[in-house]
Amino acid sequence: MNMEKLLKGKIVADALDEKTLVRVGKLKEKGLVPKLAIVRVGENESDLSYERGALKRCDKLGIEVEKHVLDMSCSQEELIDVIHSLNDDKSVHGVLMFRPLPKSFDEDVVCNELIAKKDVDGITRGSNAYIYSSKGSGFEPCTAGAVIDILKHYDIDIAGKKVVVVGRSLVIGKPVSMLFLNENATVTICHSKTKDMKEITKSADIVVAAIGKAEFLDDEFFSENQIIIDVGINYSDEKKKLVGDVNFENMEGKAIAITPVPGGVGSVTTAELAKHVVMAAENLTK
Amino acid sequence: MNMEKLLKGKIVADALDEKTLVRVGKLKEKGLVPKLAIVRVGENESDLSYERGALKRCDKLGIEVEKHVLDMSCSQEELIDVIHSLNDDKSVHGVLMFRPLPKSFDEDVVCNELIAKKDVDGITRGSNAYIYSSKGSGFEPCTAGAVIDILKHYDIDIAGKKVVVVGRSLVIGKPVSMLFLNENATVTICHSKTKDMKEITKSADIVVAAIGKAEFLDDEFFSENQIIIDVGINYSDEKKKLVGDVNFENMEGKAIAITPVPGGVGSVTTAELAKHVVMAAENLTK
Repeated sequence: MNMEKLLKGKIVADALDEKTLVRVGKLKEKGLVPKLAIVRVGENESDLSYERGALKRCDKLGIEVEKHVLDMSCSQEELIDVIHSLNDDKSVHGVLMFRPLPKSFDEDVVCNELIAKKDVDGITRGSNAYIYSSKGSGFEPCTAGAVIDILKHYDIDIAGKKVVVVGRSLVIGKPVSMLFLNENATVTICHSKTKDMKEITKSADIVVAAIGKAEFLDDEFFSENQIIIDVGINYSDEKKKLVGDVNFENMEGKAIAITPVPGGVGSVTTAELAKHVVMAAENLTK
Repeated sequence: MNMEKLLKGKIVADALDEKTLVRVGKLKEKGLVPKLAIVRVGENESDLSYERGALKRCDKLGIEVEKHVLDMSCSQEELIDVIHSLNDDKSVHGVLMFRPLPKSFDEDVVCNELIAKKDVDGITRGSNAYIYSSKGSGFEPCTAGAVIDILKHYDIDIAGKKVVVVGRSLVIGKPVSMLFLNENATVTICHSKTKDMKEITKSADIVVAAIGKAEFLDDEFFSENQIIIDVGINYSDEKKKLVGDVNFENMEGKAIAITPVPGGVGSVTTAELAKHVVMAAENLTK
C-alpha cells in the first residue's frame, strides 16, 4: 500500500507567500515596508541564481530589496563596514550575506558582525543560540525552516514521529534537528562516522537527507512507508544534472512521499527568507 | 556475559583533579591564580551543599573562591550589579550562579548579563551558541561535561556508538547530546513526547537518563550489554533517599556498566567546574 507522492516545493512556497503577503499588508498599514539587504562578494553563479529568485519573490510580495555587491578584491574590513551600516540602518530588517566568502576572509568573524535580529538566514552566534535554546533573537537557516514547512503544508504529523537526520552541519543538520525537537519529534542525528546507518534510517518515520553527497542514500537505506526529505543539491557530472542526496532509482513504491531535486526543498527557501524578513520587521512593532 | 560495573564518580573526579592541579601550577608560575566567584541568592540547602563541595575542591586545587551571597529580598538590579562587577573584575575567571533564582526574577535576563568567557556552568546565550556550534566562547554545563568525562575515564568508546539521551533540557539533555555528537556518536534525543521509548532505549549502546523523574526508567527500558549513565538526582519520598532516573531494581546483570546515584555523575560536577575555571584562566594567557 504505497502511494508515493512527490512533495513539490512550489506549492508550499506559494502557500507561504499567501500568508506572508497578508503580513506585509498589515505592516504597510503601520507605515512599515519590510526590507531585505543582500550582501554579495563576487559573481558566483549559484549566488546569482539564488539572488534572482529572492528578488523575484520579494518583488511579488512587496518586500523591498537593496543589493550590496563587493568586488572579490575587497578587504574584510570593507565587508564588515557594509554589515555595520546595515546593522545601523533602521529601514533594513533582514540581511542575507552569501557564503562562502573569499578564502582569505575569516568567515566566522564576518558573520558575527551582523546583529542577530537581522540575521534572517541564521549565520550568527545569536541565531545559533536561538535555534538551540529557543531564547533570544535570531532565525534558523532558511533551508531548515523549509523542511518543517513542507511537512506541515502536506499535513504530515511530526509530533511523536521518529525523525532521522543524516548530516550534522550548522547549515542544515543541526538546526533542522533542533526544529524537529521543538515539534516534539524523537530525533536521531547521523553523520559520516555513524555505523549501521542503513539500519538507523530504515527505522525512521521521516528521513532528512542532508549529507551533501550526490545520491549517497540509495534504496538500501529505506524501508516502506517512509517520508523522505532530500535537502541535497549536488551537480552530478555523470548525469549532467542536479541530483539530491537520495538516489531515486529503485525507490519505486518505497517511500510514501519524497521531495524531488530540483523542485523540492530548494524551491521553498526564498519563501522562507521572505517570511523571516517580515518576522524581523514585525519584531520592531512589538 | 554481563560484568556489571559501577561507574563511580569519585575516582573520575580524583583523576580530573590531578590534571587540573598541574594546570593550576602552571598558571601560578605565570603569576595567575585562578579564581571562581560564587553567586547565591538565599540559603537553599541543595545550593549550600553544592557550594560546600565546590569550596572544598577548589581549596584542594589552589583555586581561589569568593562568595557573593544576596538575601532573598534583594532586587534583580542588585543581583545584576554583582554580575557586572564580576564581569569587570580581572581577578575573577569563572562565575557560578545558583539557580533557580527567586520567582520574581527574570532568570533568562539575569543569566545573560554574565559574559560567556566567565560562564563556567553554561548558562548564557554565548555558551549555548558555543555548545551548539563549537565556535566562540563559553562552557558546557558541568553535568554534561561530567557525563563525557566519566565515559572517557573508564575507557568506554563513544565514537560510532549509538547514544540515546532521554531528556532535552538546556541543563543536560541538549548539551550532552551536542557533546556526544562532537565525539562522533550517533545521537538520539528522546523526551516526554517520544513514542515507543522502550524500543529506542533498548537499541542503544549508551543510554543517558536525564529526564528528572525518580526511577522512571525500569528494567523494561534496557537490553543486555548497555552502558547506563544516570544523571537524575531525585529525592524519593517513598524510599526516603536520593534516587536516579533509573530504577536499579531488576537491573541485575543487565547493564555492563552503570553510574550509581548518589556517587555517580553528581560526584564529578565540581571537578568539572574546577576544570572550567582553570580553562577560563588559561584562555587569558592565550
